[in-house]
Amino acid sequence: MKSIEGGVCAPQGFQAGGIRCGIKEGSLKRDLALIYSEVPCTAAALFTTNQIKAASVLVSQQHLAQGPIRGIIANSGNANACTGEEGIAAARRMAERAGAVLYIPEEQVAVASTGVIGVPLPIQLIVDGMEALRGSLRSDAQGHEDALEAIMTTDTRKKAGAVELEIAGSPIRLGGMVKGSGMIHPNMGTLLCFITTDVLISPECLDQALRRSVQRSFNRVTVDGDTSTNDMILIMANGEGRNPRIETPGPDFEAFAAALETLCVNLARAVARDGEGATKLLTVTLRGAADEDSAVVLAKSVASSSLVKAACFGADANWGRVLCALGYAGIDFDPHKVEIAFASAAGRLSLCKAGVGLPFAEAIAKQILLEDEIEISITLGPGPGEAVVWGCDLSYEYVKINGDYRS
Amino acid sequence: MKSIEGGVCAPQGFQAGGIRCGIKEGSLKRDLALIYSEVPCTAAALFTTNQIKAASVLVSQQHLAQGPIRGIIANSGNANACTGEEGIAAARRMAERAGAVLYIPEEQVAVASTGVIGVPLPIQLIVDGMEALRGSLRSDAQGHEDALEAIMTTDTRKKAGAVELEIAGSPIRLGGMVKGSGMIHPNMGTLLCFITTDVLISPECLDQALRRSVQRSFNRVTVDGDTSTNDMILIMANGEGRNPRIETPGPDFEAFAAALETLCVNLARAVARDGEGATKLLTVTLRGAADEDSAVVLAKSVASSSLVKAACFGADANWGRVLCALGYAGIDFDPHKVEIAFASAAGRLSLCKAGVGLPFAEAIAKQILLEDEIEISITLGPGPGEAVVWGCDLSYEYVKINGDYRS
Repeated sequence: MKSIEGGVCAPQGFQAGGIRCGIKEGSLKRDLALIYSEVPCTAAALFTTNQIKAASVLVSQQHLAQGPIRGIIANSGNANACTGEEGIAAARRMAERAGAVLYIPEEQVAVASTGVIGVPLPIQLIVDGMEALRGSLRSDAQGHEDALEAIMTTDTRKKAGAVELEIAGSPIRLGGMVKGSGMIHPNMGTLLCFITTDVLISPECLDQALRRSVQRSFNRVTVDGDTSTNDMILIMANGEGRNPRIETPGPDFEAFAAALETLCVNLARAVARDGEGATKLLTVTLRGAADEDSAVVLAKSVASSSLVKAACFGADANWGRVLCALGYAGIDFDPHKVEIAFASAAGRLSLCKAGVGLPFAEAIAKQILLEDEIEISITLGPGPGEAVVWGCDLSYEYVKINGDYRS
Repeated sequence: MKSIEGGVCAPQGFQAGGIRCGIKEGSLKRDLALIYSEVPCTAAALFTTNQIKAASVLVSQQHLAQGPIRGIIANSGNANACTGEEGIAAARRMAERAGAVLYIPEEQVAVASTGVIGVPLPIQLIVDGMEALRGSLRSDAQGHEDALEAIMTTDTRKKAGAVELEIAGSPIRLGGMVKGSGMIHPNMGTLLCFITTDVLISPECLDQALRRSVQRSFNRVTVDGDTSTNDMILIMANGEGRNPRIETPGPDFEAFAAALETLCVNLARAVARDGEGATKLLTVTLRGAADEDSAVVLAKSVASSSLVKAACFGADANWGRVLCALGYAGIDFDPHKVEIAFASAAGRLSLCKAGVGLPFAEAIAKQILLEDEIEISITLGPGPGEAVVWGCDLSYEYVKINGDYRS
């Protein structure tokens, strides 16, 4: 497996594009994206667990249930959530108009939206821009870039990737883009992630590979604990790689699933790194829990703690807050066996052993914590459960961004 | 029932005092407090639910289990948590030395600490200050003030109160002080609350009244979602009010419990109002849930959302975030029946009806949200469950305070 260029346009037979149709008032940024496969795709997806689901989520769920997909249309600047029946009609209209210009049935188009909640979607702007959107489709990296730019909101970095592997002699590619910086929490916070691949695979195997990968990537990222109404991770597999069709578990499935997990982990880490106002990526590594699920809950409790996050922002080696966050995670463990260390490119420092603080040099701790990637390494005891979770620090900028997001 | 002056010294037979013994290095603030009853007290307490419990919590739990209490010694500047066996020994020593100067057994002294976690408690400073601490005891409001100042950390306001009621012709007084601003979450975040009363009551009735009151006050406050290792709410009842002893449910019990709940609600609101870096008190009122427990969970989800809190700081009427936070609370409800309004001294504005946004004037919304006490009023449906929860906004100041708390 190797990294390649091109994002969602890296796999054979995919095109992407993006335009500015005017949803983001007073902005010159792109706000409408399209991803298109030249042939019908097997698709799988995961949607928000929030009870309040955006219109685009409801419509995409229906369309995916009806069979293959060939396109994804996505807008930024408006979430089309809490917009009632009109919102549903607008989401359907997006799919229908995209289908019309692509000459495919509307059921083969998935719809995604991200932005402010509760404001009617200016659907006419989208309809008016549809011809230009189709015209923007390209099969090269530029198409990918344009589409990616068009789904970004408070994101400060382009988050994308692509990998190539060989399956039974055929080169297979996977490409992905992700949008999301605030409202990111385990179980998917405002996150749009679109993945394309030219692997030939059954819907069941694709679904299984996606679930496993997301479980170990996006579901282990936390930015602010809020889970959005609009989240969606969607993968389209068009079979153009012409490998022997993957229909059962086995080496081919495992090779593909591993590549997908690698791509998802890289995208998920990028999301944590780009958390709203984040200045640091936090990696919480937890070992010695009773099982993997417990390890995830405990590690997430640490990565989600506002006090831990603020301490990391301030490069303050306040390991007591780490222990405290473990203590209220709701999972039993022996406080007298806990070990905590902070590490980064600048070094590694043990701060707590057997549940008790160790003496340490503040200057060294500071040096370690001033790096922009910090690991909090925790050992709980002798158990086999371990997990890695990603998060970010809590900065002034987070408050600033979210204090006045709508204006 | 009426409000009175004097705090914990308002009830008959109580004294309080506070000194600076030097735990808070480089600070001139008081850091050691004592509350003392002239006669043995029936006591009841609630302690942190965090698995990691400070030494003071463990020692106080033991002492309370052994019978009546006559004193509370408390320090700020050091939490004496995650300090191992030495920490336990230090907490015992605090009780033992306080007992010695007060001529009471150490088992009659409860111990409390608040401050940084994982640093050995400078017990010698406390021991050396003990005579001066006893000398600071006074039975007037000044004694209360000195003790209160000595338990404060990042608190910016003195949070205290006292009430008087009549039980079967006898005037009965309750007084309380509370410390806590960060790490406040339902189920008690770094919160020290000491309540005195001269009521004559059985231990069982006192315990029941305290639990009920805390359930509807401190357990409905959230500042940052972190639950501390040191929390303690302790009430001492010395019987000096000479009412007929309250031993069973009935009008006397209800009158006392109502007064205690009023005092606790006022103290809890003050804690939310003084949340670290808080500029506003948020009151989330939720009606129409299936039952009270569901209403509490839903209201807390809103009051805890970083995005809702940041929007309130920025006076941004982003009601979509309120709906979103309801949606991920894990309680079923019908999104199509939700109503949301924002209110304050400046007015009231309906923002969402039947789950869909209403048009509203931004200027009016801004005016309402610029007040320093904001109510978010939610109606979910026709259910009988309702609850009120208190929280605060999320400001730059929170990040600043917690980015470098230890130095």
